[in-house]
Amino acid sequence: MTTQAPGIDAALEQRAVNTIRFLAVDAVEQAKSGHPGMPMGMADVAYLLWTRYLRYQPQDPAWPGRDRFVLSAGHGSMLLYAMLHLAGYDLPLEELKRFRRLKSRTPGHPEYGVTVGVETTTGPLGQGFGNAVGLALASRMLSARCATPEFDPGAHRVFGIVSDGDLMEGVASEAASLAGHWGLGNLKLVYDQNHISIEGDTALAFTEDVGKRFEAYGWQVGHANAQDRAAVARALDAAAAETARPSLVIATSTIAYGAPHKAGTAAAHGEPLGAEEALAAKRALGWPEQPAFLVPDDVRGLFTERAAALRRDYDAWHAALKRWRAAHADRAALWDQLVERRVPPDGFERLVANAPAGPAATRAHGNAVLQQAAALVPALVGGAADLEPSTRTAIKGSTAIQRGDFVGRNFHFGVREHGMAAILNGLSLGGFIPYGASFLIFTDYARPAIRLSALMRRQVVWVFTHDSVFLGEDGPTHEPIEQLASLRAIPNMLVIRPADGIETAAAWGLALERRDGPTLIALTRQNLPALERPASFEPAALRRGGYVLREPAASAAVTLIATGSEVSLAAAAAVLLDSRGLPARVVSMPSPQLFLAQDAAWRERVLPPGGRRVSIEAGSTVGWDRIVGERGLAIGIDRFGESAPLAEIQQHFGFTPDKIAARIADWLSKPA
Amino acid sequence: MTTQAPGIDAALEQRAVNTIRFLAVDAVEQAKSGHPGMPMGMADVAYLLWTRYLRYQPQDPAWPGRDRFVLSAGHGSMLLYAMLHLAGYDLPLEELKRFRRLKSRTPGHPEYGVTVGVETTTGPLGQGFGNAVGLALASRMLSARCATPEFDPGAHRVFGIVSDGDLMEGVASEAASLAGHWGLGNLKLVYDQNHISIEGDTALAFTEDVGKRFEAYGWQVGHANAQDRAAVARALDAAAAETARPSLVIATSTIAYGAPHKAGTAAAHGEPLGAEEALAAKRALGWPEQPAFLVPDDVRGLFTERAAALRRDYDAWHAALKRWRAAHADRAALWDQLVERRVPPDGFERLVANAPAGPAATRAHGNAVLQQAAALVPALVGGAADLEPSTRTAIKGSTAIQRGDFVGRNFHFGVREHGMAAILNGLSLGGFIPYGASFLIFTDYARPAIRLSALMRRQVVWVFTHDSVFLGEDGPTHEPIEQLASLRAIPNMLVIRPADGIETAAAWGLALERRDGPTLIALTRQNLPALERPASFEPAALRRGGYVLREPAASAAVTLIATGSEVSLAAAAAVLLDSRGLPARVVSMPSPQLFLAQDAAWRERVLPPGGRRVSIEAGSTVGWDRIVGERGLAIGIDRFGESAPLAEIQQHFGFTPDKIAARIADWLSKPA
Repeated sequence: MTTQAPGIDAALEQRAVNTIRFLAVDAVEQAKSGHPGMPMGMADVAYLLWTRYLRYQPQDPAWPGRDRFVLSAGHGSMLLYAMLHLAGYDLPLEELKRFRRLKSRTPGHPEYGVTVGVETTTGPLGQGFGNAVGLALASRMLSARCATPEFDPGAHRVFGIVSDGDLMEGVASEAASLAGHWGLGNLKLVYDQNHISIEGDTALAFTEDVGKRFEAYGWQVGHANAQDRAAVARALDAAAAETARPSLVIATSTIAYGAPHKAGTAAAHGEPLGAEEALAAKRALGWPEQPAFLVPDDVRGLFTERAAALRRDYDAWHAALKRWRAAHADRAALWDQLVERRVPPDGFERLVANAPAGPAATRAHGNAVLQQAAALVPALVGGAADLEPSTRTAIKGSTAIQRGDFVGRNFHFGVREHGMAAILNGLSLGGFIPYGASFLIFTDYARPAIRLSALMRRQVVWVFTHDSVFLGEDGPTHEPIEQLASLRAIPNMLVIRPADGIETAAAWGLALERRDGPTLIALTRQNLPALERPASFEPAALRRGGYVLREPAASAAVTLIATGSEVSLAAAAAVLLDSRGLPARVVSMPSPQLFLAQDAAWRERVLPPGGRRVSIEAGSTVGWDRIVGERGLAIGIDRFGESAPLAEIQQHFGFTPDKIAARIADWLSKPA
Repeated sequence: MTTQAPGIDAALEQRAVNTIRFLAVDAVEQAKSGHPGMPMGMADVAYLLWTRYLRYQPQDPAWPGRDRFVLSAGHGSMLLYAMLHLAGYDLPLEELKRFRRLKSRTPGHPEYGVTVGVETTTGPLGQGFGNAVGLALASRMLSARCATPEFDPGAHRVFGIVSDGDLMEGVASEAASLAGHWGLGNLKLVYDQNHISIEGDTALAFTEDVGKRFEAYGWQVGHANAQDRAAVARALDAAAAETARPSLVIATSTIAYGAPHKAGTAAAHGEPLGAEEALAAKRALGWPEQPAFLVPDDVRGLFTERAAALRRDYDAWHAALKRWRAAHADRAALWDQLVERRVPPDGFERLVANAPAGPAATRAHGNAVLQQAAALVPALVGGAADLEPSTRTAIKGSTAIQRGDFVGRNFHFGVREHGMAAILNGLSLGGFIPYGASFLIFTDYARPAIRLSALMRRQVVWVFTHDSVFLGEDGPTHEPIEQLASLRAIPNMLVIRPADGIETAAAWGLALERRDGPTLIALTRQNLPALERPASFEPAALRRGGYVLREPAASAAVTLIATGSEVSLAAAAAVLLDSRGLPARVVSMPSPQLFLAQDAAWRERVLPPGGRRVSIEAGSTVGWDRIVGERGLAIGIDRFGESAPLAEIQQHFGFTPDKIAARIADWLSKPA
């Protein structure tokens, strides 16, 4: 924690820095692929961070008291792997030698869950920046809930390295503005300003005054030459001393520092130096040409000493925690709830048993269910991208997070869907089950971060309302068409579109149970009738993704399969079809993905083989062929929406019971 | 054009402003839906823009010399409709009375192509901002190509109104940074700083110093109270005088100005004032309570006079154009090529006839074809989001756009996919056929703008490389899985994934021919073999989205349908299947969408009914059921990728000829 140089001689420090540099160079050479330039340029900064600033504990990588490090510039992954190796994490040299090989612990970009010590998956630029803001926010929120005068288990800092590319991305701009707004003084990012992007000098496209921009966001901004360790340490000291504002240290660096011909060039960004240039760099910096992956004993010793010092911090922290637990049982209980993100084992059943009844928009049902979910799960926190009055996603009886006041459970993210989503991912990594809300169409704005929640297997709940053309007057710019289909196509993303109160309760119940991935709940703007269910209905069916809502009296001529707002429409159409002598079954299928994952017995009970099937969903028909089959009919909307009142939209797109029934009857009258 | 008040008395001006204000109020009341607050607050600014700054010609709305106006805050659409009506565009009061009704010319948000005078579709926040940057850039590029000392047909200005929400969105940050970088002095935006967002005071989430941020981007920043017309005029004069930097006039306004109870509140943002408050506002501002939709004669007269003055400008412009055409035939010819975005009628055939041959990555073929396309189409311009060395999308022999040098055809967009895409939409509206490039995975970053190119039916070419897990070492953060499926699901978006040189040429040929919508071309990083085609192959088949590449000697037991890099894989697997006594047809299907749009005769020729079918695509299988049918097999990748060298990835995911052939043989051995 001290920022004083701990009496280590300068030559040893330089050897340590060069060890980092050449571990990266050698790994990239061995892989014949990777990004050597960034680690070579930022080795000094990384050295300083790991030896003087970061608190960590390799033997307990999930230690809640650790400082977090986020490599937003994920392409520089070898810098992080080198540091994790040297710091004593379970990442042996053998793994560094398998850089970018199948199933190694050293993939091309850092992946959360693959490599111990990697705090978040980065690579898509700007995401790590947003995650870091979320992590810093989580710390502040843990502190606000749990700290006592003697001890604050939530307190830690979030460090990171961000690149030119990160700072060009809009998602980072959005997150930076929020970090400044919230005054996240525990966030300390170093900006690797190497003036090189893939196409060449950043001056080709990036000539803004970044420092001034961040000051405008309310950040503290420092400057240093990245190769001048004393200057970097001064800037980091200033950042460390700042507690009211997030800090950006602009570290002007030389990409591929030390490579005689490629330093400072775009050629050093994304490909190996080549054997010759790698050797030349070693010679230039006085590094032994052999062996590759050299870690001198004294360098290893330096990190061992650092680990020992950190171990004392760690032990002290645990001693304090123990005293604090004893003195503050209530806070300790809350702490465990938060850090473990606890959900009661019967959460699903309780939400379903208390489901809101009656006719309403599912967004209104969602609001009612959210209040219950929030009562069951203290770790549940969330907010909207400036649409809460429409999404109805505030937790009642709690305040909103603001600068200096982090005790609330609600957020105002502003009109920043992408920043919100990246911050939610960070919150989920920092000790909460976060949810975020907007209109379904605006998932498009947040898609890269939504995808990362699925890739990282994080429990994030995405609540998106106004889920079809039936939002009406706002028109095609606001009306989702392909969004449901394209969200369902994301691996490990569970999409649920409930049809009424009980299905909305079940959706939230499943979202709370789902520990290894995100759940997206799509809700209506418009009112829906309450569905009638057969006496035989069992709530456990709501876990199956699809179930029979209605069996006709006579043997079914057709099965109608619908989601969300189209389930009541299908039920109404079924009555009309019955009256035409075409008995119709109705299946409610809030999640086709979940349904397809059921065993064959359930699937065939719901969709008996051979029957004629019609899907009804007010959106793209893409994906429904899998459900209705080749002989089936997929009723949907494969064109853009229209601006008009609800009733006109329903007529125009043919989504009325009459029109649906007529269309199905016509279709049934033709040979299959 | 003068910024002096043209001798109009202040009372008349005030009546004109109130006319604007109450046209919006009355329309929203009549629709029972809409956003009255913004037009009420910005009526003064709009009045000034339309009467003193903007050059336009309602009788010739496509006049190239007109100034463009972009309402990035698209929810304030009634402000724009009121102005277009008053200015004399073909938008009668009857249409204002049909605000937000089906098939009106006054949809909820402004839609390009629906309403004459609407320059771009807005509503999703931040998009209009990016479009405005693209429009301003297009003007500078037209000027650089066509201006002579006597006359510059490309010169015009781009005005716009942006909201708090626009400026929170990352896409606007990205575009603003580029506008400053390029020094777009013809861009003049007014920021409606009304301090109100949907969730309440913007101070809830937006406390940054916007003016300072824009100065950091290199913008000129001015300030005025939006209700103080003299102050606004001074700020707009300063903006008009600035030619080296884009301008932002921060206009502090009162949302719903004049409404006694709702002014300055979030309640006035997105819903009608209500009859009582609307009447109270009229009383407060001394406006007649009846009739609704009142346009006093003298106010109409004021705009008629303005139209007459503008008509003189317009006539003078055309006279100058005529002289210029006569004196500069070469420039005039280029001008027509650009403004009409001309493509030779035989462009497709020429590109296909000269298609690159031999084995190569399709990104390399793409580079070769691009050079030919650029030679055929002077309007073709484009660039990449800092990945050109990888996407290989530069036009050779031309320079890149930079501040003060707009003659080039290439852009450096920096790592700003979303800003790039919104700017490309603006360029397409301003006289070019733009293309933009990045990796396929990063379509996620640009998706809202890509969607708008489809909704607006604009000819934008999206070139995305590294189109599958076979990009290899960069790993799952960079490997597209669901992207092809979800892009194909966007209405009016043509996605083409070519398999070799001739298919790449055809993809570009189709993209150049497609005037009413965007085309996305997905290209490989890795090398592919050159395909062998039967002697009977006719290039016109490349227009069909799918065609038979290989007929087996014996009657086919199975048809393999593949796209892009999997076509050669399918062909190799077919040879193996043949040798196992399972004769296999191979269909190359670069665009399933285009194939499904063909007549039944073609479809059945390519995919004879009843045959067993297998699709092979290294991505999500979503959507392929429609092609292979219920009895078919969709081979794809429905999970996230891995970081590893190409060969390991191919083995791991089973995408080798051996594994594919074995899997298909096994599948065929089971009953259908």
